[in-house]
Amino acid sequence: MPDTAQTNSAVISSDRVNGTEVYGVEGGSIGHIDHLLIDKKTGRITYAMMGFGGFMGLGEDYYPIPWAKLDYDPGLAGYRTDITREQIEGAPERRDGWYDDRKWEEATYAHYGAPYYWI
Amino acid sequence: MPDTAQTNSAVISSDRVNGTEVYGVEGGSIGHIDHLLIDKKTGRITYAMMGFGGFMGLGEDYYPIPWAKLDYDPGLAGYRTDITREQIEGAPERRDGWYDDRKWEEATYAHYGAPYYWI
Repeated sequence: MPDTAQTNSAVISSDRVNGTEVYGVEGGSIGHIDHLLIDKKTGRITYAMMGFGGFMGLGEDYYPIPWAKLDYDPGLAGYRTDITREQIEGAPERRDGWYDDRKWEEATYAHYGAPYYWI
Repeated sequence: MPDTAQTNSAVISSDRVNGTEVYGVEGGSIGHIDHLLIDKKTGRITYAMMGFGGFMGLGEDYYPIPWAKLDYDPGLAGYRTDITREQIEGAPERRDGWYDDRKWEEATYAHYGAPYYWI
């Protein structure tokens, strides 16, 4: 990738986001980042959408995670997180338009113990 | 794309960013978004990296543009911008680590008339 951010910088390229593995506290991969949701006006990431490839059998493929819970590790070429599979399974349920529903967002960020992105 | 943001929402998926065309005020494509640079700590987009495929002969392939200058148009399935080719050619020159250089960033955001992303 020519002339763009290095991984030891304060910034990261979205090329190192989509498809990147996410590793849990026990060291194994707990999924990958499929894509990001971005607030159009502010250019802020509202959620990283984690994918599990369906092997967990939860009946859906993507789970929105606060960006603040992901920590890029250049050595792993992936993200570390302290989020667990149990936490993801216990996250607030989504309805149509959840990404525009501030009540759902508050509950979800509180569930993950992440600071609100909108403040 | 299952259960993620719709284009009429306040949020947009990064799937609709990488590779997406950028159209100028005269209507034609002036390039595409190759990838985004993201501040790791805040989850804020610092730059959209525009690519030109080299046909402009400027000797480099990517140009960092403030996210605030891009306006997604679902009808076009692309971005509109009032940035011109001349403006891009006249942007402050980059050196190694430009994305961590606040002085360069101030000059660049001022050049494009965009509000600083770090305030």
